[in-house]
Amino acid sequence: MVAQVAILGASGYTGAELVRLLATHGGMRVVALTANAKAGQGMAEVFPHLRHLDLPRLTDIGAFDPEGVDLVFCALPHATTQQVVAGLPEAVKVVDLSADFRLEDPAAYRDWYGHDHAAPALQATAVYGLPEFYRDRIRGARLVANTGCYVAASLLPVLPLLQAGAIDPDEIVIDAASGVSGAGRAAKEGMLHAEVSEGFRAYGVGRHRHMAELDQEFSKAAGRPVTCSFTPHLAPHNRGILATIHLRGDARQVHEVLARRYAAEPFIVVLPMGETPATQHVRGSNFCHIGVVADRRAGRVIVVSALDNLVKGASGQAIQNANLMLGLPETQGLEAPPLFP
Amino acid sequence: MVAQVAILGASGYTGAELVRLLATHGGMRVVALTANAKAGQGMAEVFPHLRHLDLPRLTDIGAFDPEGVDLVFCALPHATTQQVVAGLPEAVKVVDLSADFRLEDPAAYRDWYGHDHAAPALQATAVYGLPEFYRDRIRGARLVANTGCYVAASLLPVLPLLQAGAIDPDEIVIDAASGVSGAGRAAKEGMLHAEVSEGFRAYGVGRHRHMAELDQEFSKAAGRPVTCSFTPHLAPHNRGILATIHLRGDARQVHEVLARRYAAEPFIVVLPMGETPATQHVRGSNFCHIGVVADRRAGRVIVVSALDNLVKGASGQAIQNANLMLGLPETQGLEAPPLFP
Amino acid sequence: MVAQVAILGASGYTGAELVRLLATHGGMRVVALTANAKAGQGMAEVFPHLRHLDLPRLTDIGAFDPEGVDLVFCALPHATTQQVVAGLPEAVKVVDLSADFRLEDPAAYRDWYGHDHAAPALQATAVYGLPEFYRDRIRGARLVANTGCYVAASLLPVLPLLQAGAIDPDEIVIDAASGVSGAGRAAKEGMLHAEVSEGFRAYGVGRHRHMAELDQEFSKAAGRPVTCSFTPHLAPHNRGILATIHLRGDARQVHEVLARRYAAEPFIVVLPMGETPATQHVRGSNFCHIGVVADRRAGRVIVVSALDNLVKGASGQAIQNANLMLGLPETQGLEAPPLFP
Amino acid sequence: MVAQVAILGASGYTGAELVRLLATHGGMRVVALTANAKAGQGMAEVFPHLRHLDLPRLTDIGAFDPEGVDLVFCALPHATTQQVVAGLPEAVKVVDLSADFRLEDPAAYRDWYGHDHAAPALQATAVYGLPEFYRDRIRGARLVANTGCYVAASLLPVLPLLQAGAIDPDEIVIDAASGVSGAGRAAKEGMLHAEVSEGFRAYGVGRHRHMAELDQEFSKAAGRPVTCSFTPHLAPHNRGILATIHLRGDARQVHEVLARRYAAEPFIVVLPMGETPATQHVRGSNFCHIGVVADRRAGRVIVVSALDNLVKGASGQAIQNANLMLGLPETQGLEAPPLFP
Repeated sequence: MVAQVAILGASGYTGAELVRLLATHGGMRVVALTANAKAGQGMAEVFPHLRHLDLPRLTDIGAFDPEGVDLVFCALPHATTQQVVAGLPEAVKVVDLSADFRLEDPAAYRDWYGHDHAAPALQATAVYGLPEFYRDRIRGARLVANTGCYVAASLLPVLPLLQAGAIDPDEIVIDAASGVSGAGRAAKEGMLHAEVSEGFRAYGVGRHRHMAELDQEFSKAAGRPVTCSFTPHLAPHNRGILATIHLRGDARQVHEVLARRYAAEPFIVVLPMGETPATQHVRGSNFCHIGVVADRRAGRVIVVSALDNLVKGASGQAIQNANLMLGLPETQGLEAPPLFP
Repeated sequence: MVAQVAILGASGYTGAELVRLLATHGGMRVVALTANAKAGQGMAEVFPHLRHLDLPRLTDIGAFDPEGVDLVFCALPHATTQQVVAGLPEAVKVVDLSADFRLEDPAAYRDWYGHDHAAPALQATAVYGLPEFYRDRIRGARLVANTGCYVAASLLPVLPLLQAGAIDPDEIVIDAASGVSGAGRAAKEGMLHAEVSEGFRAYGVGRHRHMAELDQEFSKAAGRPVTCSFTPHLAPHNRGILATIHLRGDARQVHEVLARRYAAEPFIVVLPMGETPATQHVRGSNFCHIGVVADRRAGRVIVVSALDNLVKGASGQAIQNANLMLGLPETQGLEAPPLFP
Repeated sequence: MVAQVAILGASGYTGAELVRLLATHGGMRVVALTANAKAGQGMAEVFPHLRHLDLPRLTDIGAFDPEGVDLVFCALPHATTQQVVAGLPEAVKVVDLSADFRLEDPAAYRDWYGHDHAAPALQATAVYGLPEFYRDRIRGARLVANTGCYVAASLLPVLPLLQAGAIDPDEIVIDAASGVSGAGRAAKEGMLHAEVSEGFRAYGVGRHRHMAELDQEFSKAAGRPVTCSFTPHLAPHNRGILATIHLRGDARQVHEVLARRYAAEPFIVVLPMGETPATQHVRGSNFCHIGVVADRRAGRVIVVSALDNLVKGASGQAIQNANLMLGLPETQGLEAPPLFP
Repeated sequence: MVAQVAILGASGYTGAELVRLLATHGGMRVVALTANAKAGQGMAEVFPHLRHLDLPRLTDIGAFDPEGVDLVFCALPHATTQQVVAGLPEAVKVVDLSADFRLEDPAAYRDWYGHDHAAPALQATAVYGLPEFYRDRIRGARLVANTGCYVAASLLPVLPLLQAGAIDPDEIVIDAASGVSGAGRAAKEGMLHAEVSEGFRAYGVGRHRHMAELDQEFSKAAGRPVTCSFTPHLAPHNRGILATIHLRGDARQVHEVLARRYAAEPFIVVLPMGETPATQHVRGSNFCHIGVVADRRAGRVIVVSALDNLVKGASGQAIQNANLMLGLPETQGLEAPPLFP
């Protein structure tokens, strides 16, 4: 039996990436695609790389009929998803790729987003969508809030260390660099090729919405409030996040905890001690590579993680979650190796 | 039954690309990898993006044992392949990705490569590996000479037109631009990031070895000698060839001939009249997109083709040929959509 | 005496490039900058790379006071310039970087731009701004229509050949590739880093406005109507145009004509026979490099030119024209070598 | 009077950058260029972007005659410079761009470079070449050891804070990303376009030679031993270093100290509080932009600096030093604005 799935917000990069990955998945069939600004167009016009696929035309979200749909991927802009999900029948499962349902605490949501959450009751039912940590709850969930891309790159290397008490929770400094696809497909001056290429810069320094999500998950893992330092950067490439994470702890122990924790995980690769990853070696794949190196200052360790922000940081993770929710093998459709060079 | 395959020359980009595509193929299993300069290393060291795969270590080619191997992919440097293939048992099928067996005429080989062919008898048995034109012969072949990347991008749009008599064979002008992966992984000053990026240039102007292969196939299709103009360029990206081809003929007829010829081909997409392709929309895939536009000068037409030089221009095509030779479905392992962005 | 100059449309790339080049020019001082959408901002906000310069704030064009201004650089969008220039006092010299005054024939303008020219009388006084061919007339001009970037890259190698009768005017085929800065700074989906990088494509195939300008100048040089084939491409880099030009003629003679014609030109470098240029070797400079190679087909020649579309193709050329108009040394402020890598 | 200068090691990127900057300098004339591997070639062959300049041919260093030369720029590989400089007449001033004379302590040199210094007496006379801090000593120096690129990007924002006691010297964490030109022009697999582009990675994590230079200068400024954490990254662009620096201190005070310290410096721009720089906005120039932002964790501050590794991080700084040594205006030849885009 093949599940019927819909993608709401199919004209963005995460929407297209869902279509790409589902094309060879085998267990899900795309039966509806919505994209308000491009309603009426075929996918060949919107994303020519998908032109050979037999896909439904893009429709306005108002024309979306959930009848017969098993699961919906919501790849809508942040803050618009709450209403949309609230309007779906209970029987339709939802994987939401936006930030709308990631924060468990409505007060934290208001603090970071500047307005009240529009569906707090629904929020209470949402499961945080990081399969390596919430696999069992995701299996039974109706609504899963997919982990953000920067946050996935930060949580995967750090959560096991907090849970094991291997690092000082008060001393977490993260410098992360993302490719431009993380900014989406909206036409903005700052994302033009001429503005981005041949350059490197930090942005959102000091305060960035992803911090709320980091705080929540780091604090749960540590069993007490954790406030980290997080600085995002824009690197002149399309895909990939590299997080360089400075911690207090013993490097050997840190490596050991991570290696043991992820030994059986299909998508998390802990590199041999002293090696560090590169975004080009996970591009297009659902893998996350993690490396550990001792800082030359005693008692400090540098952990580096790499993932593809559109796959393990978004659409691949969403499919991994959907696989769990639909009772499919967790790795189905996600096993293609990275594309290099 | 899963075929046992070996990759000779596995430390180059086409070798790695074969491994990548075969990882999810299902019908072939990689049982040997050779790479003289990196013999003894594991694939994780040579190509970290393949580190999660369970693969044999790289060996020297002298240590390669063809026993039990059904098919060998030769991804060796040009001119070294002739001896290697000559030394393989008859029962082992061969797909050769080098230029060594592409030229049917030993005199043409000597003219373009400056030395005599080392295995002329073997050459006589080789089948030219462009499945869209030699499918039936490839099925029965023991040795297939995989079409070159620039040449595939040129033949696919032009051969049907020559066969149909829709264009003037004496007026073919091709300007083609390739990504840098076409130059291989050898460390050369001219291929450094700092030399290539933020730049665009022509090279090999006037005389380039690919011309020999173009001449051969164009002439066969036209039924008389054809000498085209071909100018390669280096574009600052990793993957992809775009060929802009200037022809004399009627644009509508040209479009019609191509659309009809490729209607049933799984990997060749002829765009609607007036649209042109882009390399980023075929990246990582086995597709070739072809567009046709009327030149404003009457009786001239511009045909533009795009493919990924490492896939449809090399390793994907090689697997397509191997599928045919092994009696597998021709498209097996090659159906993943392009990776964009 | 330092000339007082204004830049109308200073928030685009050509405007910023004028400011950059004038910063160390010595003979011109920027006394006004206009940019309607960003009026009120300082240049540090709009172009942080110019933040160390002491510059006037950006104003609305309505607030521009031409009193005391010797020369105005118009870097406004096409079709808005006609009114603006018509409203300037006669005493103010104008170098217009738009296409508005390039076409001498009002009928050609209407044909290519779809509307009547708004200032046909002014048009009649405009001098075409290619200093290597119109130097004397530019010296005495009040209004100069700066040559377009693609057109400069095409005219410089071809005009001397047409004038010398060294090529067949009916057989000119130009494939040109431009960096993205040629598309300007307007936020368009198609110019996002994620859409452009790692890709190469043709656009505007068959009909492109630059053809009108090419037709005009080629025809004047040939002394009879010339219609060429011209296909623009987008290469994934910021600056630079490479034009690969296919001609009928004798390669030696073509090289000789060009070498002789440009021997004394300060910015045009004809490479030794058989060598071809690269855009990365003219980046940021006012140089145009030209190479000549014999096609292997007898009687055909391939000429390749490279320039920086923002400098010799726009702002550098504009300053070269302004130098002539103001009686300054033609090369003043334009002698900095290219920036490589 | 124009000083006669020589460039030893002119076939690398810093050598070419010296030539570029000196071409319009006015106070220095290049009278000799050496480059052993490319001896006998003209600069047009080695660096086509400099082909329009009238330059001496490249010679072997053995053929270099220092007679009449006022100053030598040494852009030789690390560890070869010591012998070369020891062999020059005392009257010839030297700016050394290698690391050979940067470490004042011979023991530190041995520790980091694995061999004894070959010219310890000469070392004792060398002045560390960071003009913003050693201007007066540089004026009278015969031998100046130009600051390294990563180190310049780190020292400029941090030294004033250590000197002012505004930060905790035991808590300095630096994540820095460099463009590929910092790796030089040697042909290495890891620096190929296909390996670097579309990727981002850390390297040399835990131990990197630049740390020795950082330790030395940080310790001098703090008046006690300082050991920082420093992690270099490779960003897929050609030029530019961005250093993101995590410190303990008060953000307002940090900004105030830096703004006051650099108010009169011609090349150091401290951005308004809360703004951060980008490498694309200093490209090709001798500027260093510095931004300060408060971390959301109380008592922490994030300082971000950007410079062009080939200019302010190498050849521009070398010319700034040479200007001081030759009694020329310090900014001569270095005032061209950055090239953007």
